[in-house]
Formats: sequence, structure tokens, C-alpha cells
Amino acid sequence: MNLKELIAQVRKKKSCLCVGLDSDAAKIPAGVGVVDFNVRIMEATAGYAVAYKLNTAFYEARGAEGWRWMQQTVEQVPRGCLVIIDAKRGDIGNTAEQYASAFYDVMRADAVTVNPYMGWDSVQPFLRPQKWAVVLALTSNAGAQDFQMLRVGQKHLYEEVLQQVSARAGADEVMFVAGATHVEMLKRVREIVPEHFLLIPGVGAQGGNLNEVMRIACNNNVGVLINSSRQIIYASAGADFAEAAGDEAKRLQKQMSDFI
Amino acid sequence: MNLKELIAQVRKKKSCLCVGLDSDAAKIPAGVGVVDFNVRIMEATAGYAVAYKLNTAFYEARGAEGWRWMQQTVEQVPRGCLVIIDAKRGDIGNTAEQYASAFYDVMRADAVTVNPYMGWDSVQPFLRPQKWAVVLALTSNAGAQDFQMLRVGQKHLYEEVLQQVSARAGADEVMFVAGATHVEMLKRVREIVPEHFLLIPGVGAQGGNLNEVMRIACNNNVGVLINSSRQIIYASAGADFAEAAGDEAKRLQKQMSDFI
Repeated sequence: MNLKELIAQVRKKKSCLCVGLDSDAAKIPAGVGVVDFNVRIMEATAGYAVAYKLNTAFYEARGAEGWRWMQQTVEQVPRGCLVIIDAKRGDIGNTAEQYASAFYDVMRADAVTVNPYMGWDSVQPFLRPQKWAVVLALTSNAGAQDFQMLRVGQKHLYEEVLQQVSARAGADEVMFVAGATHVEMLKRVREIVPEHFLLIPGVGAQGGNLNEVMRIACNNNVGVLINSSRQIIYASAGADFAEAAGDEAKRLQKQMSDFI
Repeated sequence: MNLKELIAQVRKKKSCLCVGLDSDAAKIPAGVGVVDFNVRIMEATAGYAVAYKLNTAFYEARGAEGWRWMQQTVEQVPRGCLVIIDAKRGDIGNTAEQYASAFYDVMRADAVTVNPYMGWDSVQPFLRPQKWAVVLALTSNAGAQDFQMLRVGQKHLYEEVLQQVSARAGADEVMFVAGATHVEMLKRVREIVPEHFLLIPGVGAQGGNLNEVMRIACNNNVGVLINSSRQIIYASAGADFAEAAGDEAKRLQKQMSDFI
């Protein structure tokens, strides 16, 4: 999917919702398989979401079988929706190429989250036409303070990451992760990368406020994907989990539509 | 494996060699399966190596099947050798716990490489008795300059990582990755973390000099694991690949023995 197509989807659905399929086999309703769970969540939310994000950790915790569940889920993502693999990978060039191949060629995902600590040559292999490297800048956890917010000269480290990466890769090949839990800093993020899409976790379970985030982070192309995981997929622990997920996605989409 | 046992293995074998099983199905001899390749490499090198490191990228590039190859390889690592999964993971707490479970509980590895960009709460879930979080500090690639070597106050970012993490986790629970391609900086690494083991990539194919690295980086407990991947596993492209790997491992072990 290219930038123009992504923006068109966002405008068409009046939604920038990304549903995080952090589907923990221990938490989903008894008797429902993980792939079935994911497919039913996707069916119920497809009208309100423009992207689905699978965090590799929740699948790898089930070994090779979990990896297959991830693959099978990606194969069933509704057409027109962006598939983000939240892998947070980052390694030296020849190794990063293997990861890019794993997620783009084998899994046929559209986007992969990438950790920038090892520098540009660990990010570059994830750039491909119609694909997206989603680079961690400012994450939503408390630990973001430990290194990302350190001062590097006149800037914070996360600002340096935004500047270095955006200088080398345009809005049609890179997005940035910027957490909703740091609202003041989202303003600064948007100043540094006015054009790039932001993938924003931390709304809901982690405490970020959706309206406030949309007000600060949107650009002329909307320019944000707001991720919600637990709040949607675990909206009900019962047999009505898919319906409850759909309701929750619809509620979020309605809030978003005011800004789109 | 605990610190005492690891040191005993190093002294017994007079080796700090870690063999990197970055086994690319496209590069191994025709007709040899990846698991068979790994097992034969391990049999040939077990007398000279104290650790085996599997980089997840090379397995994930083959999808769920590759993940199973990784699992099957770990099951056949020779007794007494440390199993390091070079995954470079790093995520928020509840997700990092899933990764720790994937590699410690399901795969039964001893150690996992961890990317510190997201801060302490992304590292902490990898701390467990008899297990090791191997935290990236200074990597061997050119991109290490982009962020790791930025000045944060009076220090470089990689020094800050070493200080913050070593202040919170002892030599019996954390190791650090420090690349052999930055010999001058290895001295500084050793000053900041005199007790911790260092996992040192970059000897051989990437240009680092073994003797120089050993001279600078060893401590009283030896305190280093030197990784060699391509130089060993691709020592011969022919049917004698295992024998050639054994010869290369023996050659490296002999050089190491002068320092142990």
C-alpha cells in the first residue's frame, strides 16, 4: 500500500484506527483458537479500522505454532487494510535484510516496526516501495525516560532519531512510533516530522486521551494511526467478544471521525 | 547456567568462543537441512566452543518452519554450552514478558540479546535466575555511530546504557554486547563494567582482531564471549563444511587459550 492509498482509506472510513491483535492464547475465550479469534475480531472491526497490528511477542510465546498463527492471521486481513508487524527489529545490514524478507516476502506484511538504536544501516533494509519501516521514536512506556528523553546537545535523543531518519526517508517509506502518553512531546514530534505518519500507541489502557492526541498530532493528510489493542480485543471476555470489539472500534471511529 | 558455571566452562575448555549459527538456508550445502547443518557444526565445534548463538532473523526468514528449525537446533545444543538467542528484542513490560517466555520457557535458551532503546522496563523482564539478558551497548556496525556514539552530557549514549543497566543488574544476570570493531572503545566499556561478561561480535568477517580484543576486554574471570559466525559456519562450502568449521573453531580456540 502506498501513501496515497493509505490516506484514501483513512478518508473513506473516516478512521485512523489500528487494531492491535496482541492475542494472548491464555486470555481469549475458552474453546476459541487464536486465528479464529483474530479473524472474528477483524470481521467485526473492518468497517471501523484501517490497519491491523500483530505484535510478534504474543505469537512467539507459543513457538513455531504461534508463528504459523501470525502468518494465517495476516493471510486473512480484510482487503484495503494495512498490515503492521510490530516486531521492533533492528540488526546489522545483512541480518536486517533477513528480517525484511521474513515480514515482507514470507508474511506479506505492509509494515514493520523497527528499533533505531543500531543506526541507519539497521533501518535502511526495511525501506521498499509500497512498504513501511515504522521507526520507534518516543515510546509510550515509563522506560522512554531512560534513554529516549536524554539530552543530546540541544535535543532529546528521540528528536535526534526523528531528524536523522526523516532526513533520509520520506513520508512514503517511513512512519514513526510516538506514544500517546507524552502529549506535550507529540507537539514537538509533529514539528520535526510534519509530513510523516505517526503510529500512536498508548490510547486507552495506557492512559492517553484520544481527542487530545488527534488534536495535536493530525496533519493535513490526517497523518496518524491510533493503535488500540486490549481495549478492543478484550472488550468482552465472553462469547460476544467479537461483537464487543466491533462496538468498541465503532465508538473510537466515531470520535476519530470528528477530526477527519 | 549461572556465572560460576559459565566461568568454569570457559576455563575448562580454555575457550571463550561463541559460534554464531546464522544459518541461511540459501547458503548451506545443497541437500543438507538447516537443523542437520547446525547439528553437524555443533558436533564438530563443541570441543572448542562454550556458547552457541542463533540469530532469529535467519530462521524467521523461513517463516514458521524456520522457527521450528531454531527450536530443534536449541534442543540439540551440546551439554554445558550456553544457548544465546540473538533476538535483539525490546518492548513494553507486558510484551517483553511474552518474549522472555518465548525464549526462556518455550525455547529453553539461557540468554537473549535485548535492545535497550525503550529503557529499563523493557530489559527487566529478561532477568531471571540462571538466565541472561545480553544488552546491546556498542554494536559492530557502521550505524553504531548514528546514535550509540552521540554525546549525552559528558558521556556517549552507549556509556550511559552501560552505566544505567549495570547499576541495576549484576554480572550474574546481565551481559553486554560490545563490538570488536571499536577497539579503543572496548577499553572504556571495560572501565565502566569491569565485572560483566561482554559478548563481542565483529571478529573475523567484520574486521576485528582477536588478540587485540582479548588483550583489552578480558577481566579476571576472562569475562568475554567472542562470537564468530560466517568465518566458522561457512569455512567450507562443500561436503566437508563441518570438518572445516571444526578446524576454524580449533584455530580460534588456540588463539584464545593464550589469554585464559
